[in-house]
Amino acid sequence: MPTMSKTKSVYFFGAGKAEAKVLSNELLGGKGANLAEMTTLGIPVPAGFTISTEECVRYYENGLKISDELMKEILEGVTKVEEVMGAKFGDAKNPLLLSVRSGARVSMPGMMDTVLNLGLTDDSVVGLSIRSGSERFAWDSYRRFIQMFGDVVLGVEHHDFEHLLDVKKHQRGLAQDTDMDANDLKDLVKQYKALIASKGIIFPQDPKEQLKLSVGAVFDSWHSDRAAKYRQINRIPSEWGTAVNVQAMVFGNLGDTSGTGVAFTRDPGNGDNVFYGEYLMNAQGEDVVAGIRTPLPISQLKEAMPVVYNELETIYLKLEKHYLDMQDMEFTIQDKKLYLLQTRSGKRTAAAAVKIAVDMVKEGMITKQEALLRVSANQIDQLLHPNIDPKAHVEVIAKGLPASPGAAVGKIVFTAEEAEKWVNGGEKIILVRLETSPEDIGGMFVADGILTARGGMTSHAAVVARGMGKCCVAGCGSIRVDERNKTLTIGNLVLREGDFLTLNGSTGEVISGQVPLIKASLSGEFGELMKWADSFRKLKVRANADTPFDAEIARGFGAEGIGLCRTEHMFFEGDRIKAVREMILADNLEGRQIALDKLLPMQRGDFYGIFKAMQGLPVTIRLLDPPLHEFLPHEEEAVRQMAQELNISVDQVRQKVSALHEFNPMLGHRGCRLAVTYPEICEMQTRAIIEAAVQLDKEGIKVSPEIMIPLVGEIKELTFLKERAKGIADAIIAQSGSDIEYTIGTMIEIPRAALLADEIAKEADFFSFGTNDLTQLTFGISRDDAGSFLPEYVSKGILKDDPFQVLDQEGVGRLIEIGIERGRSVKKKLKVGICGEHGGDPSSVEFCHRKKFDYVSCSPYRVPIARLAAAQAALREKK
Amino acid sequence: MPTMSKTKSVYFFGAGKAEAKVLSNELLGGKGANLAEMTTLGIPVPAGFTISTEECVRYYENGLKISDELMKEILEGVTKVEEVMGAKFGDAKNPLLLSVRSGARVSMPGMMDTVLNLGLTDDSVVGLSIRSGSERFAWDSYRRFIQMFGDVVLGVEHHDFEHLLDVKKHQRGLAQDTDMDANDLKDLVKQYKALIASKGIIFPQDPKEQLKLSVGAVFDSWHSDRAAKYRQINRIPSEWGTAVNVQAMVFGNLGDTSGTGVAFTRDPGNGDNVFYGEYLMNAQGEDVVAGIRTPLPISQLKEAMPVVYNELETIYLKLEKHYLDMQDMEFTIQDKKLYLLQTRSGKRTAAAAVKIAVDMVKEGMITKQEALLRVSANQIDQLLHPNIDPKAHVEVIAKGLPASPGAAVGKIVFTAEEAEKWVNGGEKIILVRLETSPEDIGGMFVADGILTARGGMTSHAAVVARGMGKCCVAGCGSIRVDERNKTLTIGNLVLREGDFLTLNGSTGEVISGQVPLIKASLSGEFGELMKWADSFRKLKVRANADTPFDAEIARGFGAEGIGLCRTEHMFFEGDRIKAVREMILADNLEGRQIALDKLLPMQRGDFYGIFKAMQGLPVTIRLLDPPLHEFLPHEEEAVRQMAQELNISVDQVRQKVSALHEFNPMLGHRGCRLAVTYPEICEMQTRAIIEAAVQLDKEGIKVSPEIMIPLVGEIKELTFLKERAKGIADAIIAQSGSDIEYTIGTMIEIPRAALLADEIAKEADFFSFGTNDLTQLTFGISRDDAGSFLPEYVSKGILKDDPFQVLDQEGVGRLIEIGIERGRSVKKKLKVGICGEHGGDPSSVEFCHRKKFDYVSCSPYRVPIARLAAAQAALREKK
Repeated sequence: MPTMSKTKSVYFFGAGKAEAKVLSNELLGGKGANLAEMTTLGIPVPAGFTISTEECVRYYENGLKISDELMKEILEGVTKVEEVMGAKFGDAKNPLLLSVRSGARVSMPGMMDTVLNLGLTDDSVVGLSIRSGSERFAWDSYRRFIQMFGDVVLGVEHHDFEHLLDVKKHQRGLAQDTDMDANDLKDLVKQYKALIASKGIIFPQDPKEQLKLSVGAVFDSWHSDRAAKYRQINRIPSEWGTAVNVQAMVFGNLGDTSGTGVAFTRDPGNGDNVFYGEYLMNAQGEDVVAGIRTPLPISQLKEAMPVVYNELETIYLKLEKHYLDMQDMEFTIQDKKLYLLQTRSGKRTAAAAVKIAVDMVKEGMITKQEALLRVSANQIDQLLHPNIDPKAHVEVIAKGLPASPGAAVGKIVFTAEEAEKWVNGGEKIILVRLETSPEDIGGMFVADGILTARGGMTSHAAVVARGMGKCCVAGCGSIRVDERNKTLTIGNLVLREGDFLTLNGSTGEVISGQVPLIKASLSGEFGELMKWADSFRKLKVRANADTPFDAEIARGFGAEGIGLCRTEHMFFEGDRIKAVREMILADNLEGRQIALDKLLPMQRGDFYGIFKAMQGLPVTIRLLDPPLHEFLPHEEEAVRQMAQELNISVDQVRQKVSALHEFNPMLGHRGCRLAVTYPEICEMQTRAIIEAAVQLDKEGIKVSPEIMIPLVGEIKELTFLKERAKGIADAIIAQSGSDIEYTIGTMIEIPRAALLADEIAKEADFFSFGTNDLTQLTFGISRDDAGSFLPEYVSKGILKDDPFQVLDQEGVGRLIEIGIERGRSVKKKLKVGICGEHGGDPSSVEFCHRKKFDYVSCSPYRVPIARLAAAQAALREKK
Repeated sequence: MPTMSKTKSVYFFGAGKAEAKVLSNELLGGKGANLAEMTTLGIPVPAGFTISTEECVRYYENGLKISDELMKEILEGVTKVEEVMGAKFGDAKNPLLLSVRSGARVSMPGMMDTVLNLGLTDDSVVGLSIRSGSERFAWDSYRRFIQMFGDVVLGVEHHDFEHLLDVKKHQRGLAQDTDMDANDLKDLVKQYKALIASKGIIFPQDPKEQLKLSVGAVFDSWHSDRAAKYRQINRIPSEWGTAVNVQAMVFGNLGDTSGTGVAFTRDPGNGDNVFYGEYLMNAQGEDVVAGIRTPLPISQLKEAMPVVYNELETIYLKLEKHYLDMQDMEFTIQDKKLYLLQTRSGKRTAAAAVKIAVDMVKEGMITKQEALLRVSANQIDQLLHPNIDPKAHVEVIAKGLPASPGAAVGKIVFTAEEAEKWVNGGEKIILVRLETSPEDIGGMFVADGILTARGGMTSHAAVVARGMGKCCVAGCGSIRVDERNKTLTIGNLVLREGDFLTLNGSTGEVISGQVPLIKASLSGEFGELMKWADSFRKLKVRANADTPFDAEIARGFGAEGIGLCRTEHMFFEGDRIKAVREMILADNLEGRQIALDKLLPMQRGDFYGIFKAMQGLPVTIRLLDPPLHEFLPHEEEAVRQMAQELNISVDQVRQKVSALHEFNPMLGHRGCRLAVTYPEICEMQTRAIIEAAVQLDKEGIKVSPEIMIPLVGEIKELTFLKERAKGIADAIIAQSGSDIEYTIGTMIEIPRAALLADEIAKEADFFSFGTNDLTQLTFGISRDDAGSFLPEYVSKGILKDDPFQVLDQEGVGRLIEIGIERGRSVKKKLKVGICGEHGGDPSSVEFCHRKKFDYVSCSPYRVPIARLAAAQAALREKK
């Protein structure tokens, strides 16, 4: 900290000058630094001063006391404000009123306390009445001040004041606060003061005392419960403390030559380079927000008050040029005089963020690098899915997890079969399930949206929906789904098959009826920004894709390969499931081989299509992963049907289902464990991969297959399977005379594999970190069951984020580090990627960049996000 | 390797001398070194020579060829043997016959090939006939030689010879091989030679050629499939190679002055220091083993052949004195002349091992340290449980996993309720279940043995049974259990409720009917050995115990505290389960609190009893761990009963059961996650613990409670709960005026906790590694589901051991190391223990010793094992 802090604590700003030499957020807080900066830019800001954050720290060290030295400095500050504003604090004729506001280093909106209209007393209210020409205004200001001061500073309950207010209106038969006249308000002031006195507290009539108490109250609010909690969640150190800004009050509600408004230097909705905003005459800030009166577009101000408008125009251009970003400004016109109360970087839609960033590069304001860092990678997700028309009125009837972004409207159905039937009949549908299972895949594919009552952000429904780029709200605990009777119940509302429903997968909202959607489009600027991103990033970005269709989408979004092609989804399509079930029910190798021979040509066809779509880009194919029972039916009717199809007894099916039952399927007979037990499955899949590659090679199309063995925990598993796969692959290649190259690698998703990565790297051509399972095992948490406690963990601040959405860099990340370190200690150039859900999460992408991954792989719809995040990671590192 | 190996490869032994200077197993193999050693001790051993292991390596390097140099050395060896034995190899009048046997560095019993009676030809068989005085003997030897040589060396199928033998007996109407006369055998020799010739192979009539081929065949057998597999499983390097021992044949079947026998220098059954053994006159080694003729006790030899007996007595004393261990010897008497064919450390029962070790210390033969290292810690498990009378005839009808040692006999029942009913009626019962659940605990407690069809070595049944010291056979896949119809089916055998069954939990055998058992007793020597163990070990040994009863048993076995007291088992007893269910069904804190208030006095009573039993020794109490659904009934009838008891609707119960359902309960809402969601449970348990402690303190009884928070993965979980527990505990202690001390620590059973142990150690007073869960998560394997692939993993050699039985030191061990290292980096004297199943496994105990654990904790019945293993670990380290 600067040493001058010991001698100076209060920094004045006003009349074009600011006392602080360094306008740092650290010392002045964000708001204070900003006000000082605007002042020095010659922008009209009501004069005031900032009490530094260091004084907050000292306040706590001193046992919650404002020292005499500080009070002296504060009063010197007040004097300077009086001079600039031409009014006197507490004066009975021309009183200066002050606002007292918190201002931490980083914004903590609404977390700390504010006192407005400070300086009003029984004396000065008279002065205000005269100066403003409105007795009602003066007494209403006084009433508001007592209420706010009473609540924030004196600790009298807010609702006690509200109660008196209500009684008053009731007695007088008035509906609105604004209906009260000056006498009502005078009476209310009396009652308020009596209320405070009844608590044994004195309401101070000395404005200096008011000020001292208010500054103390703002300091106190730094350690309020909600502020402490907010800091805990956002990892803001509690040692920082808050600054306090004391500023002259200005009023937009002093008549028809006064007003207030909010303006943006560009359109925050679409990014257009136009001055944008709205205002209300004879109004205060909260009136604009409250929405009782409809504000006017800023363009009308040009006609109404051309001088003020011109001044505003000059200011906004100056501010944008100074901050080099789109600004969101608050202004007040007090009796034709314009004051700026605040400026800050404006919030904007993803579309606007992209357009503004690209435009500013073209306007020469910022560099491409800066532009890339301006756009939130998470936010651009909005650009890749249809969304609810922001102008539409929506009635939210339930809220679940925002499992897969975008919005969908359709008629609800309750089974995958019905879904397919209805869609074939030309309907748009929303598939509603308790939870989905791989058997539902067909229904999910045709649905416009998916809604489930159970499961988390990485439940089956969520993962599959994101993979398909389809809207999904999962784990919506407040709905009751009765699949048998085909009803969806929310409280007293009962929806039936065929009723309309709208889902917002970006927010988790379940919305009543049909709401208009807007289709998102990739604007030219977006494409341009993505190209810039590609020129700076070092990480490659691949997609997780299981079909030629997905592969095409992935390429369209700029994927540079497929990082995860799950073969099990292929097993559900059409007739295949029958062959798969035949294989499972076979009691011996011969029986399994017969079934596998039926699957071979189909799998070969799948791989042919995917390889062809990727035109020589690398394609990582994961061998069969899920436990076999996922391929068997569980419901009575389906069991019967399967028995009939395979011409066996219902009992045989049931016995198999029961034999394959697992207590913890996540930790069961799956992944490479299946292949160790039934090497013939691994062999069939290898054959399908290599035969497809050879065929394309003959057709002159490049192929680059990477065979990935899942769930390896022990080097001997890999050795055992690699030997078998290599035997098949090399024989096919040798026979074909082709010279295609392939690699065999492994997923690192078992903690033991990361711990023993030096051994495993000896046999693996590449590592792909499967962070979904790795997170589950490192935490000992099943993502499918986490819904019962994980949200509470996050809300209680025990975990900062859901580790299935944002990679846990401390724990899981440590294991990944060990894995990479040990793996590369043996094989220096070991190719390392990630193919969990985290591959599309910006902070996780940054982690992968830092840890020198070769690539990340994510759902096709998140490829642009990963590309941008990767560029940002590279740019931040340079800084 | 010694450099002389290049010049010398064949080492002669005979007539009291051995050529090898260093009698190393490395060079000569175990058997060869042993034969040479006996020879130099002046013990009569048939002369012979050993071809060194290095020649085996060279044989493979030379492309499976016996070099001329080696053959020259071999023939020189043969000449020496001829000189000593006074016979000539291949001679038509006085032929020397040889045996050719493998002999690796470590014993690989039955894994490699042997050729006997080598040197017989059409010429020499006549000489043997004359010298032995038995034409039949000579031709039978020849027949046997051709058959063995044909099979082992020439590759003619064994059963082709057997077929000719059978046909011959059939034609001649003879039942036994021994019924054949010399002419039959002569004819068979002819047929055998014709059989070999029909394959285009020539049976060599040159004995030198026979010898060369046989030595090659033994070398070849080093790489046979079974030998390779045996090496893989036992981690014997394949580079070692085997030595070959060529030795003069001696015959115990040359008439009434010949014989053969096996003897032990002490009784291998009970360890008594008496010469023990049996013999048969006019017989060969295999006749003793085959059991067609009943052998005589060795004492009878004293009368029958006093000279030979005296010589044998001198030899056994000499051998035991030389090897300083109980010896198992094979001998042959050929025409009144005694030959020793082998001596080795004798296998013995646990009781004998203990008695021999202790006796030998008293006899001044070995030190206490050596005695402790002589007894296998795993083996002494036998001493702690009843066992099947080894003399009893048993009919094994199925085999499961040896889940909890000991044996049990009883009538079978199929439900826990029936178990209690039958036992109350005075019956001994075996509880047979598909799998057990916590609801079965009462039935398990009263049963003598438990048999389940599903589940692994660490399934619920196995873990609980071991804790109770009760016999259990788990995961017996070949039985079908129909709990509804109360039948147990094995193949065609159907057993019904009330039928007798015997279980051997030490072997996993399921035995038909009632078999007599013998009660084990802790002999005086055993107690003595344990005391010695205690004087050398550094690790403390605690027990896992949940009741005062268990605690008493644990103390009886020498436990120095309780390392794991699971509180959930207490929740099932008597009326408690009702209160527990009330708590689970409550929808709000108040409801839960009412139910918890009912549980408080009961829990306090539990802890009071346990603390009292432990008399001030530390007691680590784990707060509630399992997911709540384990406390709810799942079967229709039980659901109905519960609804009635709690006076709620069946639907309410069903809804709760369904709401609490988890896909992967192991990774679900359990452990400290429960306590974070419902801190009131943690608070009630803390209150019960501390109030019980205070009460005992007032009674003047010492207490040392350690509160353990399970399943911590994140420091904030621990902080959150520790704060609550401390709040309660400190208040109670302060109020009571007592000065008892307690600690709060955590289980390290989640990989993330081990990775972040430096953070967690800041808040934890102790770490207890829960290696069951840690192993499950590090491997990603559910112990309950592993039965479908883990046995195959072990049999295929992919894993050396079941990691739930023997700690995986490479992977899980690495994580433990990280945990200890990081934990102690923050808190140097952090107390560290282990409380998984591994706490009672000797190799895991050794690991804990090396990693500087403070204690291990295991089931009460394994405490002596852990004490011994800990002493052995300390002693081995000193070496």
